[in-house]
Formats: sequence, structure tokens, C-alpha cells
Amino acid sequence: MRNPINPEYKKKQVDSLNIDDLIAQLHDGDRYALSKCITLIESKADRDHDHALQILEACKKVNHSTSRIAITGPPGAGKSTTIEALGSLLAQENQVAILAIDPSSTTSMGSILGDKTRMEQLSNHPNVYIRPSASSGNLGGVAATTKNVISICEAAGYDHIIIETVGVGQSEVEVASLVDLMILVTQPGAGDEIQGIKRGIMELADIIFVNKADGKRQDLANLSKKNLDNALHLMQPKPSGWAPKVQTGSALEQVGLTALQTTITAFFEHIRANDYYQIHRQSQERTWLRTYLQNLIVKSFLQGKQIETKIADMSKISSVPYTDAYDLFKEIRKIDSE
Amino acid sequence: MRNPINPEYKKKQVDSLNIDDLIAQLHDGDRYALSKCITLIESKADRDHDHALQILEACKKVNHSTSRIAITGPPGAGKSTTIEALGSLLAQENQVAILAIDPSSTTSMGSILGDKTRMEQLSNHPNVYIRPSASSGNLGGVAATTKNVISICEAAGYDHIIIETVGVGQSEVEVASLVDLMILVTQPGAGDEIQGIKRGIMELADIIFVNKADGKRQDLANLSKKNLDNALHLMQPKPSGWAPKVQTGSALEQVGLTALQTTITAFFEHIRANDYYQIHRQSQERTWLRTYLQNLIVKSFLQGKQIETKIADMSKISSVPYTDAYDLFKEIRKIDSE
Repeated sequence: MRNPINPEYKKKQVDSLNIDDLIAQLHDGDRYALSKCITLIESKADRDHDHALQILEACKKVNHSTSRIAITGPPGAGKSTTIEALGSLLAQENQVAILAIDPSSTTSMGSILGDKTRMEQLSNHPNVYIRPSASSGNLGGVAATTKNVISICEAAGYDHIIIETVGVGQSEVEVASLVDLMILVTQPGAGDEIQGIKRGIMELADIIFVNKADGKRQDLANLSKKNLDNALHLMQPKPSGWAPKVQTGSALEQVGLTALQTTITAFFEHIRANDYYQIHRQSQERTWLRTYLQNLIVKSFLQGKQIETKIADMSKISSVPYTDAYDLFKEIRKIDSE
Repeated sequence: MRNPINPEYKKKQVDSLNIDDLIAQLHDGDRYALSKCITLIESKADRDHDHALQILEACKKVNHSTSRIAITGPPGAGKSTTIEALGSLLAQENQVAILAIDPSSTTSMGSILGDKTRMEQLSNHPNVYIRPSASSGNLGGVAATTKNVISICEAAGYDHIIIETVGVGQSEVEVASLVDLMILVTQPGAGDEIQGIKRGIMELADIIFVNKADGKRQDLANLSKKNLDNALHLMQPKPSGWAPKVQTGSALEQVGLTALQTTITAFFEHIRANDYYQIHRQSQERTWLRTYLQNLIVKSFLQGKQIETKIADMSKISSVPYTDAYDLFKEIRKIDSE
């Protein structure tokens, strides 16, 4: 844990882009520098690539242990409210960065960004940094950019990185490649509703928080917890050796949040004790290394070859695009060898 | 529509791999040849690549109009039963191929293949071909392979290709890149449950089938239909100009299936009349062309460079894998230019 960010930094301005100064300010926890660095990482412009690379090189020197936590769950379950409540608790002793990830925004389906105004109170907390939505940048897609944004937040001294998924179904699997801990937020309901939570997402969850367990819904919440406990018992043990926990509470009424925080602490103690924390992170880094390498290869191979123009010019792609891709590939290789 | 497959072909054997014979048999609708071709497409062995390419080249010569339909929905909604009932109806006049896709099986999460024994009756129908699960092959991941399997089934004379999603959340977006029509199967329930259906998946759906609308659940099914209709009214119009329809029925009790078939026919008439059928397919082919091209580039770039060994040998990947990827990329480029 670092000391809380000096509020004076907030007022400081980075007037011209001196990258060494910017990096020094980032390491000092300057919020403006943090935002500026993230903007450079998210930039699609080639001229920003060298700066992005320098920033990321500097991010390797992080010497505090961090927690990366994803909050996922169906729309309406209260993810934002849970993050607001949990974030306030965690921010009492540590610095918390909250990032939203929406992989679907790369498609034409549009972003389904949650009601971020609900996090207004939290966003004024001196120990909390909120970045509403990542965009895909020069270094890859949305998740690839978020991966680097996490590194930058950690270099700026943030201890807990909370990732909120706001996209459609595919986001959970992508977000799992970014975090140590997956928390599924759901709401009271029994039987059929639990079937509605996709089994794959339940398999990814380390903690399930049955939110909105207040007033009349208390009994239903307890029943949901029982059903979820039963469903979890039928699942394969996790490679982390952690037995997933189901907890009930109400983020809105601030009930069960301390218990949730205690379970989060227990989870990290567990995976640090059995070294899964390191093993899992190394496996994630290796996967990302492959992804980034592929992105770099494709980008460099296609550079200056106007492939997009060529594809756009093709009046008709056949119904078997693999063969068209293979022909195009052979053609490019021929240009290269000439 | 082609004539029903000659049952005699079933007994024929392709003894040695003469690829021209195999392709001729495929075009004749020989099931054994079809299965053999799919196996070659799914093969991860480099020696099978030339054969796969020849088969795919031959698949361009499809001159009947086909329908590609995805059946998606939460576990327990009755996707398999719906496919069994709908498949039987469609097979009365056309040939139907049913493929299951599970993109999650590429990860460590394991496959969640539905209860295929329920389709036992359908699998004996002379007009129906069922391929339970695609695997990722030499030509790309699971969806990339399935894309080619669709081409092969169409070349074998199948008119309707039904894709069942059996994976976790991310599969819907991938499967949308493969089909003309998305059918969401759900079950009766009101209010909260509809929130549970991810909005992104509802946005993709052209037809929502509220299954299990039988006996006591009839009223609840009608309420669900009403709620879903209301939810759909709030959504952006679709690029196809098609207004999504909600229908109730019971696949188990064979209720509402003819109406579902009528709506499917109306959907295809609509998108053929306004040319969206062609426009959408061309846009899909273009996207797949890009994906395949990227796969080919990466594969060829890495060939013979033992990158996997190199990555495996790296004792520790840094916490900022983008920088490691960039270093590795520069190193490979250096080898290439020497």
C-alpha cells in the first residue's frame, strides 16, 4: 500500500509531453499523469506508439502486491451499486482503481455502459480512480488495452483494480484473462433463474454475491444461496484449490459488504499461500504475450500493403472465404519475395 | 432443394483417399464422404491442408439457396428439443444439417455439450445430418472451422444448416458471424428473468421462441411474450429491416412449431426480397476473409521459428507482456533479415 495520493498533484498540469516527467509523475501517483498515460495507451495513432511503449516499460517496476478483481453478472443485478459500496470499503485502507470493460463496443452492437452517475460519490474519494470505459487502441482490442491500463494503474500505486464488465455475454471469458478473482453479482430468485445464469460464468466465479437481499427478498435470497451452493458442489474443483463461496447482502442498504470484503481477503490469502496467485498470473501473461505477438506480426506484415483497400475492392468474396484468404495471402507473399 | 440422399451411399466406403473421388461423392450427397471431408477440415495435421483446400475450392460451386439458422438460449430452455422438433418439420421437404458449436471448448473450461441422445430419433432421418461438436482445426478456431463445415454441408446438398450453441456466453456473438437468422429459445418467466437474458443476445435475436408454454405455464408464457414484445419495441431497428417476433410454443408437445416454421420462412422471404440476405452474407464473408488472412500470416511468420519453445523457455514473463511481445517480435524480425 502506498500513501494516499497527494491532492496537490491533481492541480498540477503536464503542459508539454516530456515522457520522462510524465512517467515520474505517474509513479508519484499524479492522477492527471495517470489519465494522460491511459490516453496514450488507448491512442490509435502510430505516433503515440513509442510513448506507449516507454510508459509500459516503466510500469514493470511495480513493487507492491496488487489485487485484480472482476465484477460480473446479469444486467439489473446491481453491479455498479456493489462496486460503489465495496470500493468505499476497500478505499478506507487502500487505493482503488475502477475500470469498465465492454468488449462488445468493438462490434456494431454498441456499448451498454452502466449508470455511472451512481458512482458519483465514489469518484470524489481521494483514494479512488474511475475510468468509465476502455476503447481498443493501437496495441490491440479492448481487453488488450485494458490489460495495459491495469499495469499503468498499478504503477501509479493502486492496490485494488476492479474491472466491471458491461458488455454482452462474451466479456466474462475475456475479463477472466485479466484478473485474479471473479465475483458474480446476482439477485434473489430460485430454480429457473439460476439456470439463466450461464453455467460457464458460474464456473468462472470465485465468489457469488446474491445482492438485493433486503426486506421481503431476504427469504428468497437465502433460498438462492442454498440453490447456488448446491449447484457449486456439483462443479469440478478449481485449479486454485479455492472452494467458491456464496454470500447474500444488499449493496444499497450496505448489508453484507464487510463479510464480502472478508471473503475477498481470504481468497487472496489462500491463493498467495499456495502460490496460485503467481502461477495464474504467469499463465495469463504468457497468453497475453502470444496475443500481442500475433497482433504485432499481422500489423507489420500488412503494413504498406493496402490490404484493406484490396479487400474493399474485391467486388464479391466467395462463399468460401478461406480460399480467398489463401489466394490473397499467396499474392502478398509474392510481393514480399519480389 | 436437392433430392433426398440416396440411402445406398451410406454403405459405400471411401477406401483410399482419392480427393477427386471424395469431392465427387460429396457433391452427390454421400454422407460418408461428407463426414470424411469434415474430418479433413477439422484436422490439425499440416499434411491434410492441401486436401482441405481442394475440398473448400470445390465447395464454391453451390447453386442452391441455403438457410443458416442459429439456435441459442440459456441452458435448460430446451434448445435441443426445439431443434429436434423444428428439424423434423424442415426435413419433410428439405435436407437439414445440424451442427453444434462450443467456442468455450478451446479454453480449459471444458465443453458443455447438450444431451444429444434426445436427438436420436432425428439422427435416423434420411434427410438429416447431425455433427455433434466442432473442434478447432488447422484453419483456425472452432468458429473458423464451423464456417468451413457449413460450406461443406451446403456443397453436399443441405438446404438448412442449423447451428446449436452449446458454449458459454461468448458463443452468441461468434455464431452470429456464421448465420442468416438467430433464434433465441427461452422459457416462461416474467420481469426479472427477462433481465437475465443478456440484452446483447436479445439484440442479436430475430425470433424469440418462448418454449415450454404448456399446461400451467401457458399464462406465464403469454406474459413473457408480452414483456419480450415490449422490450423489443425499445430496441434499435435492425439493419435487415426485420421486426423481431416473439412466439410461444412447446417443442416437447409439438405446439407452435408450424407457426415457428412459418415465421422462419417469412424471415427469409423478407431478407431475400430486400437483398439483405446477400449484403449480410458478403459482409460476413469479408470479416471471415480478414480473420483467415490473419491466421495465415501469423502461422507463416512463426513457422520454423520455435516461438512456442522460446515462450515456454522464458522463465518469467514480466507483468507487462506487451513489452515482452515487442522484444520477441523485434528479435524474430532480426532473424528474418539476417
